[in-house]
Amino acid sequence: MTTTSSHRTDIDFDSPEHQARLAELYRDFAAAGMAPLWTAREELMPLSPRPRAVAHLWRWSELYPLAARSADLVPVGRGGERRAISLANPGLGGSPYATPTLWAAIQYLAPHENAPEHRHTQSAFRFVLEGEGVWTVVDGDPVAMRRGDLLLTPGWCFHGHHNVSDQPMAWLDGLDIPFVSQTDQGFFEFGPDELTDRSVPERSRSELLWGGPGLTPVSSTGARPSSPLMAYRWAHTDAALAAQLELEDGGYPGVVSAGHAAVRFTNPATGGDALTTMRTEMHRLRAGASSLRTRSSASSVWQVFAGAGTVTVGGADHPVGRGDVVAVPAWTELSFRAGDGLDLFSFSDAPVFEKLHLLRTEVVA
Amino acid sequence: MTTTSSHRTDIDFDSPEHQARLAELYRDFAAAGMAPLWTAREELMPLSPRPRAVAHLWRWSELYPLAARSADLVPVGRGGERRAISLANPGLGGSPYATPTLWAAIQYLAPHENAPEHRHTQSAFRFVLEGEGVWTVVDGDPVAMRRGDLLLTPGWCFHGHHNVSDQPMAWLDGLDIPFVSQTDQGFFEFGPDELTDRSVPERSRSELLWGGPGLTPVSSTGARPSSPLMAYRWAHTDAALAAQLELEDGGYPGVVSAGHAAVRFTNPATGGDALTTMRTEMHRLRAGASSLRTRSSASSVWQVFAGAGTVTVGGADHPVGRGDVVAVPAWTELSFRAGDGLDLFSFSDAPVFEKLHLLRTEVVA
Amino acid sequence: MTTTSSHRTDIDFDSPEHQARLAELYRDFAAAGMAPLWTAREELMPLSPRPRAVAHLWRWSELYPLAARSADLVPVGRGGERRAISLANPGLGGSPYATPTLWAAIQYLAPHENAPEHRHTQSAFRFVLEGEGVWTVVDGDPVAMRRGDLLLTPGWCFHGHHNVSDQPMAWLDGLDIPFVSQTDQGFFEFGPDELTDRSVPERSRSELLWGGPGLTPVSSTGARPSSPLMAYRWAHTDAALAAQLELEDGGYPGVVSAGHAAVRFTNPATGGDALTTMRTEMHRLRAGASSLRTRSSASSVWQVFAGAGTVTVGGADHPVGRGDVVAVPAWTELSFRAGDGLDLFSFSDAPVFEKLHLLRTEVVA
Amino acid sequence: MTTTSSHRTDIDFDSPEHQARLAELYRDFAAAGMAPLWTAREELMPLSPRPRAVAHLWRWSELYPLAARSADLVPVGRGGERRAISLANPGLGGSPYATPTLWAAIQYLAPHENAPEHRHTQSAFRFVLEGEGVWTVVDGDPVAMRRGDLLLTPGWCFHGHHNVSDQPMAWLDGLDIPFVSQTDQGFFEFGPDELTDRSVPERSRSELLWGGPGLTPVSSTGARPSSPLMAYRWAHTDAALAAQLELEDGGYPGVVSAGHAAVRFTNPATGGDALTTMRTEMHRLRAGASSLRTRSSASSVWQVFAGAGTVTVGGADHPVGRGDVVAVPAWTELSFRAGDGLDLFSFSDAPVFEKLHLLRTEVVA
Repeated sequence: MTTTSSHRTDIDFDSPEHQARLAELYRDFAAAGMAPLWTAREELMPLSPRPRAVAHLWRWSELYPLAARSADLVPVGRGGERRAISLANPGLGGSPYATPTLWAAIQYLAPHENAPEHRHTQSAFRFVLEGEGVWTVVDGDPVAMRRGDLLLTPGWCFHGHHNVSDQPMAWLDGLDIPFVSQTDQGFFEFGPDELTDRSVPERSRSELLWGGPGLTPVSSTGARPSSPLMAYRWAHTDAALAAQLELEDGGYPGVVSAGHAAVRFTNPATGGDALTTMRTEMHRLRAGASSLRTRSSASSVWQVFAGAGTVTVGGADHPVGRGDVVAVPAWTELSFRAGDGLDLFSFSDAPVFEKLHLLRTEVVA
Repeated sequence: MTTTSSHRTDIDFDSPEHQARLAELYRDFAAAGMAPLWTAREELMPLSPRPRAVAHLWRWSELYPLAARSADLVPVGRGGERRAISLANPGLGGSPYATPTLWAAIQYLAPHENAPEHRHTQSAFRFVLEGEGVWTVVDGDPVAMRRGDLLLTPGWCFHGHHNVSDQPMAWLDGLDIPFVSQTDQGFFEFGPDELTDRSVPERSRSELLWGGPGLTPVSSTGARPSSPLMAYRWAHTDAALAAQLELEDGGYPGVVSAGHAAVRFTNPATGGDALTTMRTEMHRLRAGASSLRTRSSASSVWQVFAGAGTVTVGGADHPVGRGDVVAVPAWTELSFRAGDGLDLFSFSDAPVFEKLHLLRTEVVA
Repeated sequence: MTTTSSHRTDIDFDSPEHQARLAELYRDFAAAGMAPLWTAREELMPLSPRPRAVAHLWRWSELYPLAARSADLVPVGRGGERRAISLANPGLGGSPYATPTLWAAIQYLAPHENAPEHRHTQSAFRFVLEGEGVWTVVDGDPVAMRRGDLLLTPGWCFHGHHNVSDQPMAWLDGLDIPFVSQTDQGFFEFGPDELTDRSVPERSRSELLWGGPGLTPVSSTGARPSSPLMAYRWAHTDAALAAQLELEDGGYPGVVSAGHAAVRFTNPATGGDALTTMRTEMHRLRAGASSLRTRSSASSVWQVFAGAGTVTVGGADHPVGRGDVVAVPAWTELSFRAGDGLDLFSFSDAPVFEKLHLLRTEVVA
Repeated sequence: MTTTSSHRTDIDFDSPEHQARLAELYRDFAAAGMAPLWTAREELMPLSPRPRAVAHLWRWSELYPLAARSADLVPVGRGGERRAISLANPGLGGSPYATPTLWAAIQYLAPHENAPEHRHTQSAFRFVLEGEGVWTVVDGDPVAMRRGDLLLTPGWCFHGHHNVSDQPMAWLDGLDIPFVSQTDQGFFEFGPDELTDRSVPERSRSELLWGGPGLTPVSSTGARPSSPLMAYRWAHTDAALAAQLELEDGGYPGVVSAGHAAVRFTNPATGGDALTTMRTEMHRLRAGASSLRTRSSASSVWQVFAGAGTVTVGGADHPVGRGDVVAVPAWTELSFRAGDGLDLFSFSDAPVFEKLHLLRTEVVA
């Protein structure tokens, strides 16, 4: 702490006597359950965010085998609830969190396993890098999970999973567990041990009702906080990204920047983010293209869905390939460069701060 | 007028002298530009809406040939702007309006004709009963028009049409012309005589950007008053209606009432109505099914898209078939009964009154 | 109509034969309940609003005596409901409306008279030019009416008035009767003949609950379409206008333009307009000051509350003084110039068009 | 962790060999930056919130003298910025936070001292228990601080304080420092060392513009995230609380529950909370009255403003008197009982969770 003051020039702040009195004051503060701001102001209120979380990269080639090994050793069942292994940011002192607000995990289900139903106030999604054969049952509605799909579990919806195939399946789980935990907003309730609906339809009922572009069932109009559509299918996402690049080819607006297409997964009943606390997006870079260098007060997690390239985060370059996961703390410079093309899934806590008018995002020159 | 009053019991209101003084007062009112409420209260403020518009049915078999005849006699061009013939409600004293707020017209374009570009604050849409070969160019974006499609022209978007085929094409135009006219909100601007883009793409650029279910281009997020999606394609609408009936077959919610599926065309950026002043919907009744008997303070216009059946409106039954158009005034009881199945397009002024907290809708027992 | 067309150059549109066929077509249109757009496009969709309503001025010196005369001849009671005499815009063909959407009337209550309770979907307010002694009872809450006060009757609230004094009282009534009537949104219900609460408190219960600046009762939080505060007292309005001019004197922002202070009456539960369909404001011009010359697609009615000056409307100057009322059609240029100072109450239909994204307002250079 | 599973019944999970393999797996997880959910699920996602923060009470009789002592030892100036001593919840492991999201501090300014200007994204307010003579200058607008007043410093507004009197002054500071810090949303900027406006007006300019109930300056309409009114004066708050009790005496609605009046400080431009991240309220209990026993997922801090009584929090009773401060963690039962009357100021993080649809509040039977 440095201070300048025109007051009390009569006091010698550096004198041993003064220091002794100050030390006594601080002891008395502590005894009274008090803490001075002036010794901690810079740490508590920095000029710009100083995240404890660090930029970090997890390799799919390391994540997947460890998840698979756990399937031999740990059952899925009541209590533990899920065979999910989270990515623990090295900067967060052992907390199992990717960033201070976001949870990212690899979840693994062996052939014919099922994960029992429960619900919680935490919002959740699954993003599928590879495989198929699992249905997640959300409030009784079975939702197929396949490569490239984003599947939602909005807060307080019952959900369980079952693998009907002879193959294991693994995917990325994203939740707001850290945010909800640190702010004490977590409620949790066990559901049935057995899944409420074991059917395996191609399309969930949510897709039947809400899957048409701009089409709202008259029986279900009105805003709802999170999306009523539980599945965003790869075929649509892929087509939307391709269309933006097609528009760019034609000289029309649509891409975020040169060679960089991106779609946001949104709630068709409001146009806002699909989940209340997390923003989910899919990005595509043409071969050789780079995204703009940006930083945001939102923290985020990125997974390479297809292709390979380089991520530049916090000033360092890292080659990335299929399945690799990158955690990006708040206010950390970020850009991607594609090799022969790069598809990236991302999620962030941006909606929280946007609603509170705290979000800052900038392109770094 | 009837009045009861405990005051001025000394006055003989029925006396000739009093009547003479009253008549003189009313003359003086008129001279001063004043009008008493008490003689007109019941008419001005009825117990429930007393529309001047009447329930009315126009036959496609009559509309279409008249529109076709006009093509031989009237060119399309600057000034008149469009070969559109509106449906004039017999109750509205010669005004060319379907209801006090809604304009419905049949527009006809001969082979290789084009309608020049203009824009106006009035919101507009086209609904296509039959045919194809016309592109409507909305703010420079060519939008194909085909059977079953709903095409938007939100307020103040430039637009023109051109028929690239060797066949004529006719469709239903819906606008808020009466509302905008009576409230003096109309602005109009001529655009180029020639269309700004004569290409004939399968999908408009608006569809490329906004046509994925729940997918928002990251470059274009943020609310906008009317839909950024200019075309709602029949294939999607049809599938959504079929899906609701499939859900009903499975015992799941989705339909409006037994055998009655319905979707609303909505703005994917907000979840609200696709247009600011008009609600647009597509309804499907199974063979033999009836819709609930309802009435709404919104007025509406309905067109049979496919199938046949009976409309019961204002207490009278009318057989209806493909292309027939029904105008339904405010607070008029309405129901439909399907023959072998019935698809209905409808539009109404409900968004205006919903935003003003005036809308009332009820199911009539 | 003028048309230019590159098509059908083979036809001689001016030939008698063609004209005969056209006349026949138009007859057939009429018989079929159809009307061509091309002959009416310019009238239906003008380049800018062409209001039928005209700018018009009513003198208080003429209004008040006529209202007083009616008290000798017409009782207040059930059926006619109110002794209100509306201002009929000369351009509106005999309709008792100030503008196509707004109703303005002078209401008069003789000593000890009362007007029975009723409610309606039409929104209403009272603005008091002079006098006191009347309480308006809104949903059972007696609200004192005094000079300078704005008193609300939001849609569907029961209300009646009673004059407890030995003096007559007259005031300005504003309603959205024309808008509601032409769009068929009117519902009306009779209440008790006698007022439900004859007490005469200084402050209404609505003021006790909602009268503190920025203070919301915890028991009543949440948005509501119209204001829960039924009275906007002159003392507050006057102070707010004076404060803006004080800020201007200090070189701080606050006024609308030089010498022109203005406050809007708003709903403390939302910050929006106090009523759903009408905007209400109070304006003050310093001695010698002029308001900017503006035009708006909203129509409005203005009453001089205090002082005198000149209104320039539609290009003509008119001296105005206390109580005089001016109707201003849409898109009509308007400005005021103060003599020794000028206080003006105004109401308009701006909220309707603002919600529909139709409102246009501009300062005319 | 307890698990039940029908799978892999062939494995003996309790065998030493299995335990060894599991231990090895967990070591490999840690090495890879991974953490299993199943061993931590209950802690991460409890059935209901398990706050680390505890209910805690600080006595004004202890807080004030310590703050005063610091004035002899610590200057106010650049770097440390403020002589504020925060209340550190004993459950939060030494963090200087009242709850996981809220900062509460006593700030002390000696006679004629001033605190230099700065701004930050953190929202702040001052609530004045006693004293006067300090002006807080918010974006250049000097705002007097007096007993009972709530003064706002919305995020990113420059602000400094100066004491123009010969007496020291202390008050309660409330900020969202913990929330902003833990989510990395903090930006901070130094302003001038000297205050930009040293005038000492009775009313701030914000009050001149926004201090009238339901009156919005026409020059400043439109929503803004936090309140444009910087001061909520005790006279208004006191009157509003008294009015609710007066309504209760008359048998009318208004109070929260029997004998319990409460007002929320709100943004007059939206009706929402005065600050984006914190809810601020004033409560009054009649002599002998109790508030309902409630719990909320929001955490809160309460300060006794006047009177004395008992707080029951987390099952324990504590006598409280003037100035005492209570921290209430999430989902902790809370009620107050008044002695001869009790006025309480409170602030909470409820707006954050309300906007995210996470807030739960219930009355405990």
